Amino acid sequence: MKRKAVILLVEDDRMDIELTLDAFREVKLENEIITVQTGEEALDYLLGRGDLADRKSYPLPNLVLLDLKLPGISGLDVLKTLKKTPVLKRLPVIILTSSQEESDRAAGYDYGVNSYLVKPISFSGFLEVVKNIYDYWLTLNVKAPLWN
Amino acid sequence: MKRKAVILLVEDDRMDIELTLDAFREVKLENEIITVQTGEEALDYLLGRGDLADRKSYPLPNLVLLDLKLPGISGLDVLKTLKKTPVLKRLPVIILTSSQEESDRAAGYDYGVNSYLVKPISFSGFLEVVKNIYDYWLTLNVKAPLWN
Repeated sequence: MKRKAVILLVEDDRMDIELTLDAFREVKLENEIITVQTGEEALDYLLGRGDLADRKSYPLPNLVLLDLKLPGISGLDVLKTLKKTPVLKRLPVIILTSSQEESDRAAGYDYGVNSYLVKPISFSGFLEVVKNIYDYWLTLNVKAPLWN
Repeated sequence: MKRKAVILLVEDDRMDIELTLDAFREVKLENEIITVQTGEEALDYLLGRGDLADRKSYPLPNLVLLDLKLPGISGLDVLKTLKKTPVLKRLPVIILTSSQEESDRAAGYDYGVNSYLVKPISFSGFLEVVKNIYDYWLTLNVKAPLWN
């Protein structure tokens, strides 16, 4: 059985989590979205630390959607660690943030983010973005081998 | 006057150049596509070497579409240099290749490519890919400051 695409959503804002999940539900149902709410949880998941070491239960995602402003370890620090770690650096990471700060964009690309998107304000905007993410990253883009 | 989006197409195959240019013409007319046919020309352009130093005439592109199999310096070597160079590493680079080799995909992502696409075989396939590239990278994605 082919496993469905897994998306790791790193987001602490409950409203934005709901908006994103609702939008994915609306566009395509078959994707599995795993939500973590802090940078530390994101790293635990991606690095397979502790209880999350079993890749069968906790598979590496096909895509990471990363908020920047997180409690504790920031989104940029998660990105930095991820893109410095062999194999994990091959995961496509999209920053999905409300920040339009030049310095965040510069740092995101400097740390190797694959793409930088600004959160839309309306639900219809979220739908459009999620549809684009789905079409581009889970359909058109060809992923790297991850040995998982 | 707002400058139009510039795309640097690094491709040596004349048929694929024509297909890509035709597809961009069909989808959106206003983009400026600069074609270079070797890895060396690509680096000359991006690093602003020699006659190409004037960024007003030879602006950094908003997007690089990079073939892998090029005469001389390979696409992967162009990518490696680009992603190691401050500021230039912020340019979104999409590998657009006929190679589906695992080793090429692994190396592409390891060197920091933003996305990896496989060339479609038909013109309608090219149209679809170009439309997706346009919608995602030149409309939705928020680029980094490049100071140019």
